[in-house]
Amino acid sequence: MQQRLDLVTLGVPDLDSARRFYVDGLGWQPTLEVPGEVVFLQVGYGLLLALFGADDLAADVGAGAVASGPPPLSLSQVVAGEDEVVDALARAEAAGGTVVKPAQRAAFGGFHGYFADPAGFRWEIATNPGWAVDDTGRVTIVPIET
Amino acid sequence: MQQRLDLVTLGVPDLDSARRFYVDGLGWQPTLEVPGEVVFLQVGYGLLLALFGADDLAADVGAGAVASGPPPLSLSQVVAGEDEVVDALARAEAAGGTVVKPAQRAAFGGFHGYFADPAGFRWEIATNPGWAVDDTGRVTIVPIET
Repeated sequence: MQQRLDLVTLGVPDLDSARRFYVDGLGWQPTLEVPGEVVFLQVGYGLLLALFGADDLAADVGAGAVASGPPPLSLSQVVAGEDEVVDALARAEAAGGTVVKPAQRAAFGGFHGYFADPAGFRWEIATNPGWAVDDTGRVTIVPIET
Repeated sequence: MQQRLDLVTLGVPDLDSARRFYVDGLGWQPTLEVPGEVVFLQVGYGLLLALFGADDLAADVGAGAVASGPPPLSLSQVVAGEDEVVDALARAEAAGGTVVKPAQRAAFGGFHGYFADPAGFRWEIATNPGWAVDDTGRVTIVPIET
């Protein structure tokens, strides 16, 4: 099995609410939308994020009920500076998200904060001086002494 | 806020078990490991997957308890052929995962199956004749008539 992730699908209780947040609120551009069914957003090289009804996703997986409430997972965006962390959290809040951890020094040595989207999925916005991406897309992380 | 995802962090109840599955079982190569704390795996251009203790993640987010059980989310890998779907599910099962939907025709017109990792996170392995990635990493999806 290849070491690759191409698509992250968020099963949301209210697709309209999720769309309002990501598309209308954050201004993200859909790659493809099937109204009332699914919204695909490009979030990286060869990488899509899908907004899909939680019940539709459970039916597609076909393996019974899933948990409700904030899942044990976070989606992170690494930005260049602390101002960008602050700005992104403000933008998310204005779009209808909830800041669950205001911008602050992070335990790993950078600076970060978290917001929850309307479905409760947590996004981290972070700076990380030890994070680097080369021209081929290879990421290196150098632990920072804290 | 930029339209970009750089890191997906899975909060797992048992880091050793998660590591055995992804690293020993699937043979995925870590970018960085801090033993007993975190494992980073590169899963795309500029994209990492992190295995992190669920309690550690909850503490980092600092926003109370999270749900347990399979979260309403899936992680997908798009492969070229049906044989690859079958092979990846078999490999995941041999590595200690659980096939929750055997390889079969998918509602969207392709061919797919799902497995759960030891923490319950669902991975979909799929073919999708309407999915294409160009040289710049841009993804297009053409809906398939089913």
